[in-house]
Amino acid sequence: MSPASTAPVTLGGLQSGIEDRLAMVGDEINRLIEADFPLIALANSHLTRMRGKMFRPTMVLLADEAVGGGRDPRSVVLAAVVELIHLATLVHDDAVDHSVLRRGMPTLNALFSHQVAVIMGDYLYSRAVIELVRMGDLDALRVLSRVTNQMTIGEMRQLLAHDPLAFSEADYDLLISAKTASLLAGACEVGGLRGSAAEREALRRYGEGLGMAFQIVDDLLDFTGAESDTGKPAGQDLREHKVTLPLIYALPRMAAGPRSRVAALLDNPEPREAEIAGVVEAVAECGGLEYARARAQAFCAAAEQALEGLRPSPAREQLRAGLTYVLERRN
Amino acid sequence: MSPASTAPVTLGGLQSGIEDRLAMVGDEINRLIEADFPLIALANSHLTRMRGKMFRPTMVLLADEAVGGGRDPRSVVLAAVVELIHLATLVHDDAVDHSVLRRGMPTLNALFSHQVAVIMGDYLYSRAVIELVRMGDLDALRVLSRVTNQMTIGEMRQLLAHDPLAFSEADYDLLISAKTASLLAGACEVGGLRGSAAEREALRRYGEGLGMAFQIVDDLLDFTGAESDTGKPAGQDLREHKVTLPLIYALPRMAAGPRSRVAALLDNPEPREAEIAGVVEAVAECGGLEYARARAQAFCAAAEQALEGLRPSPAREQLRAGLTYVLERRN
Repeated sequence: MSPASTAPVTLGGLQSGIEDRLAMVGDEINRLIEADFPLIALANSHLTRMRGKMFRPTMVLLADEAVGGGRDPRSVVLAAVVELIHLATLVHDDAVDHSVLRRGMPTLNALFSHQVAVIMGDYLYSRAVIELVRMGDLDALRVLSRVTNQMTIGEMRQLLAHDPLAFSEADYDLLISAKTASLLAGACEVGGLRGSAAEREALRRYGEGLGMAFQIVDDLLDFTGAESDTGKPAGQDLREHKVTLPLIYALPRMAAGPRSRVAALLDNPEPREAEIAGVVEAVAECGGLEYARARAQAFCAAAEQALEGLRPSPAREQLRAGLTYVLERRN
Repeated sequence: MSPASTAPVTLGGLQSGIEDRLAMVGDEINRLIEADFPLIALANSHLTRMRGKMFRPTMVLLADEAVGGGRDPRSVVLAAVVELIHLATLVHDDAVDHSVLRRGMPTLNALFSHQVAVIMGDYLYSRAVIELVRMGDLDALRVLSRVTNQMTIGEMRQLLAHDPLAFSEADYDLLISAKTASLLAGACEVGGLRGSAAEREALRRYGEGLGMAFQIVDDLLDFTGAESDTGKPAGQDLREHKVTLPLIYALPRMAAGPRSRVAALLDNPEPREAEIAGVVEAVAECGGLEYARARAQAFCAAAEQALEGLRPSPAREQLRAGLTYVLERRN
């Protein structure tokens, strides 16, 4: 595939034609998290205001259209459940990482407390399970409970991703597969549960490739993105000593000088801006950014290949466009 | 009921006759939590060493025998899942409370980190869901997903249980119902899923009463128990400014002097032992301990009443003995 040759793809473009269903997903999420208990209701209203771009629900709905040749009303609920699981993991990730900002807004742990964030993550996840049980959908439960377990293993791997000498590219692949690709694979698979076994598997593989690329681009944007686009300061991963693909690739290719500056940064609990900028530059000079981009493209190519397992349809073309969006996105 | 007139009931007594099945429950738990990832395997082996008294699995198995007139092999797995859910909530509760000891051993957050504890709780819970899905048991999933959600609401209520002027006896009832009784009610209900709707409801009500009494006695033991029995220092709740039933009852009945000493203790981030002992004495003098004990007995009486909905059987008598155990236990 040659994404650079296609027209720019925006998330709005991907979502055009399903805006009405995405609005219903939003309403479903509100219904699923509703609580009488005041502190939970307050936390919910904050989470509602920080709602994201609905990328995962978009994938559920497109997968549904790609297998059905129609629209299954259950997929709106499944899309809401997938986003709810995503939200639960974000809330716990922020608590685990002590993050204070998410999408330019304070995190639950920052606004309320660490305690509230831990409990809210559990609350949201158990609501997602309750809804899947209400639907009586054991297939979706099977896919999404495994994904959730995978994501916890991904979070555990993340804890160990702070030592670039011990953290290899293979470790990185396992990390992002568990942390990010698993949920996007699950989103596409549950969207396509009406399809044949071959279609479900094609969608799962598509989602896996899409998710791998999504996370690599996310990690790249930390090196290259503008805060005005991404909503977080550049170099945040380096600041937090999170080792990602560009650095993993570049480090063994660096001269002694830049290498020692990387070591110094990772030793410094509060690295200075100039230190971070210096490491970003060294990573770029050693080809770390290009390498990561090439790997993201390769994952997208594999995902595009998987789409061949689906019959031709406008939804399949939207899924293909999703790959371009993931590669081109700036936030 | 007059538990004082019956012979002493030990947990070992309750478990006599089901030791073999409880051992199988332990093996099931090990199977369910098994992990390749080294950090999770390490955390698991610690959790296995701190395994508790298996009170909830005991209740699942007794409920099974009370409805079946035989033994359903699925109930061993359900008992393991219930204990796993219990374990997941303990791990998160300890993380939320920053507790360092549990059953006389270091908590996961103390031994590893807060981060590991949050992730491990998610790991254990998602494993429990995966197993229920594998069994294809939507009824058990329905009961236990609701219970899990209830427990998160209970944890939220716990966060607010630190202001005795704002925290009423009604609030306390809602708290312990959500935090403790919900899981024991769920344990008894899923143990009895083979039974008729009336039997399931009888077991749920029995478990609810048992659970309310269990938590009240737990809170009483914090006032009266010896550390050598309970594995934690007396007055730990007061030390952590957790307001429980004995204090809620006693506070409005105290003279001005003791009242101001309660206020001073709750204002002091690190209360002295003498301060704690003084409040324990004042609570006892105002009848707080007797009142709490009477309420525990009343819940047990309601639970015993619920047992009338089951046909007579040795298992039903063991469930009845469970009420005596809960009232008499010293740890």
